[in-house]
Formats: sequence, C-alpha cells, structure tokens
Amino acid sequence: MNIASIEGLEGLTIGKLASALRISKSGLFAHFGSKEDLQCAVVEEAREIFVKRVVQPAFQFGGLKRLRALCENWIGYGEENVFPGGCFFSAASLEFDDRPGPVRDLVLGLMKKWLAILEQAASEAQTAGEIAKSADVRQLAFEIQALAMGANWRSRLFRDPDAFRSARAAIVRRIDELKVMKAG
Amino acid sequence: MNIASIEGLEGLTIGKLASALRISKSGLFAHFGSKEDLQCAVVEEAREIFVKRVVQPAFQFGGLKRLRALCENWIGYGEENVFPGGCFFSAASLEFDDRPGPVRDLVLGLMKKWLAILEQAASEAQTAGEIAKSADVRQLAFEIQALAMGANWRSRLFRDPDAFRSARAAIVRRIDELKVMKAG
Repeated sequence: MNIASIEGLEGLTIGKLASALRISKSGLFAHFGSKEDLQCAVVEEAREIFVKRVVQPAFQFGGLKRLRALCENWIGYGEENVFPGGCFFSAASLEFDDRPGPVRDLVLGLMKKWLAILEQAASEAQTAGEIAKSADVRQLAFEIQALAMGANWRSRLFRDPDAFRSARAAIVRRIDELKVMKAG
Repeated sequence: MNIASIEGLEGLTIGKLASALRISKSGLFAHFGSKEDLQCAVVEEAREIFVKRVVQPAFQFGGLKRLRALCENWIGYGEENVFPGGCFFSAASLEFDDRPGPVRDLVLGLMKKWLAILEQAASEAQTAGEIAKSADVRQLAFEIQALAMGANWRSRLFRDPDAFRSARAAIVRRIDELKVMKAG
C-alpha cells in the first residue's frame, strides 16, 4: 500500500512488493496471478480503510449531520497523512484515467459511489428541511470533492499544512450557505 | 507533449520520443543530455502554451476583470481538451510531489507563480474597491485552483462534459459573493 501511494499503482510490481515483504516472488505470483489483480487488491484495501475511517463513523448520523461528518472525517483523514504518498484515490484516479481496464473500472466505480454517498446525505438533509430545497446537491458534492482533492494537491506539492484548514473552511462555509435557518 | 500528457512525464523516455518524432535516439540524447532535461523542457513548453492561452489574454484587463478572465480562460482551456491526457500540470504535480529533483522544483515554482497571479488579481480588485476588503485572497485563489483541478479530474475519470460547467458555476458564484455592490 505504501509503495503504491508513493510510486503510483504502476510502480507497484510483484517483484517490488515481494522484496518489501521479504517473501518470494513466485509465492506472490501464485497468489495474485497478474499485476492487474495485485493493483485491484491494493485498491480494494484502500477502499476498506476509507470506508472504516471516513464513511462508517458518519453513518451513525443522518441528513446534515451525516454530510458534515463525512466531510470532516475525510479532511481529518487527509490531515493525518494516512498514506505516505497522500490521497490514494486522487493519485490512482489521475494515474488510470487514460488507461482502460479493470483497475480504471474499479477506481471509477468507487469514486462514483463516494460522490453518490455525499449527494445522498445532502438529499436527505434537504428532505429533512435542514438545507434549502433549491440546493443543487450534485453540484455540492462536486465542490466538496474538488476542495478536498485540492487540499491534498496543495499539501503534497507545497508541503503546506494549511491546505486542509483551507478546504475545511471552504466546505463548512459552502454548507452553511445552504442551511435553512430555523425559527426559535 | 502528447506522450507526457497521456503517460505521465515518467513515461516520456528519450527512446519513445525519438520514435514518435521519427528521429534518431542519439540525436535527441545529444540535444537533451538526460531524461530530466527532457522532462523539464516539456514542462517549459507546457508553461508557454498556458501563458499564451490563459495568462496573457487576461493581462489586457485589470482587477476584477482580470481575475474573471484568468478563470474563464483557464476553464475554457480545460474544456477544449488541449492536451489529450487532460490538464498537464495536474498530472505533473501529482506525479512529482514525492520525487525530489529539478522537475519537481520547476513544477512547484510554476504552480506557486500561477497561484500568485490569481491572488494578485484578486488583491488589485480589492484595492480598486471591486471586491470586499474582508475577502481572504489566498483562500480565494486556493478555491479557484481546487475547483478547476476538480473539473479536470471529473472530466477525465468520468468522461463527463458537465465537469467544466460545474467548476465555472462554482467559481463565478464564489467571486460574485465577494463583489462590492456599487450604488446607482
């Protein structure tokens, strides 16, 4: 996982993994079959970490609270620098956007699912009367995604610890703008 | 340039470039000396295209008009799909954020310069009384950068032509929020 996050999924060869794990290359080949199977297994592992760290803890809430928790968990996760190479999915999706095949399909499916989770939480907040009925929830999900990925980009390239604070401020403000003021 | 935009700068070897250009590998070696020199030359070429297409046309204006033109030229440039692999600098900065050396230094310097151009235009708009004195221009530049790169990401991964429209809408709204209403 660490090799893939620093060198990209293409840098993750069965030979490199075997030497990092100090096990035999032939044993790993027997286990994964192909480089693509290995890459998909690493993507699945990153997905599991993301779900456990970002998605699951937010699902104890509903509506607006869930949306806020998803964003906060995500930004917090970026700040903690879980992967030494920065956001795994930012890197993987840019690396594979022009490389058709099972790895791209898997990453694309997961990114769609993540945007749908954000959108769904915003829709529920709308139904509950917490954010404006006029809000475009697809647009909101896009902006949240862009701001969080932008923080990852700025933090990696400039080694700038303020990046995640900026993204958090922008996302909180954006959601607050859509909030329905409750009387009383 | 097209090889680098699809396969990444690391995929750009002197051998591959020689065969794409149908010239001899030794001729190219004599010209560039090393792979890093070649990569830096390609980054410089991308910079020139960006300056000509995005920055220069906006510099005929000042203040708020310049800021809007920078954003619009940038989004328009993304929409036109100038590079077959999508935004060259998005890809290059994510590819090199963990690879110290002259290519990373060059990309980092150019990205800093670009953020400073956005920030400076916003500052001038502030001085001219066009946007609120209270606006945080560094934060604004970060958000514009994130939204435009987010559009590139969404357009590449999902092959979604709406991506740039979403980024444009978000950026225009963000700037409009900061606008100072003029009486009369």
